[in-house]
Amino acid sequence: MPAETVNRQWLLARRPNGQVSVEDFARHDAPMPRADLAAGEILVRNLMFGFDPAQRGWMDDAPSYLPPIMIDEVVRGSAAARVIASANPAYPEGSMVRGLFGWQDYAVAARAGDPDLVSIPEDIAPEEALGIFGAASLTAYVGMFDVGRLRAGDCVLVSGAAGAVGSVAIQIARLAGARVLGIAGGAEKCRWLVEDYGADAAIDYRCEDVRARLGALAPDGIDLFFDNVGGTILEGGIAHIARFGRIVLCGAISGYNDVRGAVGPRNLMRMISQRAEMCGFILLDHLDRVPAAMADLRQWVRGGQIHYRTDIQHGFGAVPQTFLRLFSGSNQGKQLLRIDGTE
Amino acid sequence: MPAETVNRQWLLARRPNGQVSVEDFARHDAPMPRADLAAGEILVRNLMFGFDPAQRGWMDDAPSYLPPIMIDEVVRGSAAARVIASANPAYPEGSMVRGLFGWQDYAVAARAGDPDLVSIPEDIAPEEALGIFGAASLTAYVGMFDVGRLRAGDCVLVSGAAGAVGSVAIQIARLAGARVLGIAGGAEKCRWLVEDYGADAAIDYRCEDVRARLGALAPDGIDLFFDNVGGTILEGGIAHIARFGRIVLCGAISGYNDVRGAVGPRNLMRMISQRAEMCGFILLDHLDRVPAAMADLRQWVRGGQIHYRTDIQHGFGAVPQTFLRLFSGSNQGKQLLRIDGTE
Repeated sequence: MPAETVNRQWLLARRPNGQVSVEDFARHDAPMPRADLAAGEILVRNLMFGFDPAQRGWMDDAPSYLPPIMIDEVVRGSAAARVIASANPAYPEGSMVRGLFGWQDYAVAARAGDPDLVSIPEDIAPEEALGIFGAASLTAYVGMFDVGRLRAGDCVLVSGAAGAVGSVAIQIARLAGARVLGIAGGAEKCRWLVEDYGADAAIDYRCEDVRARLGALAPDGIDLFFDNVGGTILEGGIAHIARFGRIVLCGAISGYNDVRGAVGPRNLMRMISQRAEMCGFILLDHLDRVPAAMADLRQWVRGGQIHYRTDIQHGFGAVPQTFLRLFSGSNQGKQLLRIDGTE
Repeated sequence: MPAETVNRQWLLARRPNGQVSVEDFARHDAPMPRADLAAGEILVRNLMFGFDPAQRGWMDDAPSYLPPIMIDEVVRGSAAARVIASANPAYPEGSMVRGLFGWQDYAVAARAGDPDLVSIPEDIAPEEALGIFGAASLTAYVGMFDVGRLRAGDCVLVSGAAGAVGSVAIQIARLAGARVLGIAGGAEKCRWLVEDYGADAAIDYRCEDVRARLGALAPDGIDLFFDNVGGTILEGGIAHIARFGRIVLCGAISGYNDVRGAVGPRNLMRMISQRAEMCGFILLDHLDRVPAAMADLRQWVRGGQIHYRTDIQHGFGAVPQTFLRLFSGSNQGKQLLRIDGTE
């Protein structure tokens, strides 16, 4: 740990040009944040970071649902933290919280500026708060039930199915009585889908013809496609969408780092002939559903009905390369980093 | 006119390879259809054909909402016809009907095999039955109101806006109190949009930067995009879609004749950050709305609130080249052909 007067930070040094790299970030030592908290504010000590592909989008200078991260600004990101000073009775000193505290040791936060700020109950560990009970699982929940109108008997396809969102989406679909197909990269991840998450079948996009396999596995078409990938994977799903099928756009990781922009699905005519719909969504529009989602997830997780993986890296100095693991697909489940004694 | 024992036909000679051409069709003289009608059937004499880009899709050997036209089969298409023999009291001999009677002089039809078969009231001319009161206008109506949930105050964009569907979509949006932008090809069509159809602005995709113009004309984004074109035009609309915007996919004429398939929009991430939806539809799913749509259309047309253009070509021999006018954009309004004395 550094001296308690220093606030270690990772800043956005430049905008990534296509593929994000460690050179896009810069280590910086800032002074401790001010201790004179305004009413409602808290001062937190980050203990663990959670990484999400959406952070890549915030690094581009483009309008989105959150403003772009500015150059030389601390990289916005999710963290589990302990409250070390509080001017907000909802988050007392000593309690644990989760929020968009950024890649730094300390942060001053308030509910108004951080839609993700929540208390972490005592029976939930930091890796659970950022992992199975984090935004990714809540995103899978509202994407499946509220946006995708998941129904028992649906044939459901999930892409990016071994990831933090996808693996929960797979299991929610199974618990709801759907038949579930998952797409992931590599034999090991495909084995997780079937053996651990209960998918009916897995497709390895690295070595299989996704479109042909979908035709064989879903001869009556895909009723609900929960897409985290975009590009040709999305195109493959559209090619086999069922009549009146629903496509939920949750992410498009295939295009995040492509300076030319993602490849677009060339078969949108199929959306017309099948009368299919496609809908983009983000969790922030569905925060009213979080209590119900948390109650269901807690019951499923504690009851052993939902399995999950976390990939915990270590050390503040490893933050950028840990983030990059998301885009090479080397993360083995939800990507986290524990801030411990190592630099 | 041919001898009354001959049924002139245009057959699909081969599947178009990319751009459809007159060589894809073959003239054939068949005998008159049998006169021994089964209960419910009618024998009709076609008087006028209506052409639609959707016919191009039916010529591909691909599953769709209607089966492909077979090689050496009469080309499926809409016609206005007189009933010359009837075994169905709903369509008495001597009355006028519209249906998918195909590119031929005579056809035997029944309601079960032809979802488009309807009586034409006496006060509606054949060119009106196939034009302003035809499937294109009904498609614009349900696409705008039922699929697109058109609301007063919306900023609405219509592509292919000078076409049979688009020109009515523009006017319906204006009548509903929306601000309307139209995209068409060429200065003359763009002038129609503003002067005849009441669009607030027109964009000429042949010589203007569609995306830049949309940014200037819709600074708060497009609430409802009624797309008939697909490809880069669709991509341009997505780039300026408003938060919670709706995209109605009615057609994708830009890709119909492209053997490589249409270009796909590369910016579907924008659908996520704007929480936008995109929905394909066809009129056949909304036939319950036809009576209401017809009542509204009739009132608007007879009251001079909706203007329309028909482009009437002549002669049975000119059928294929008349169909091709749709794809070169040379049609000046709804493309029709009157079957008269000329071959």
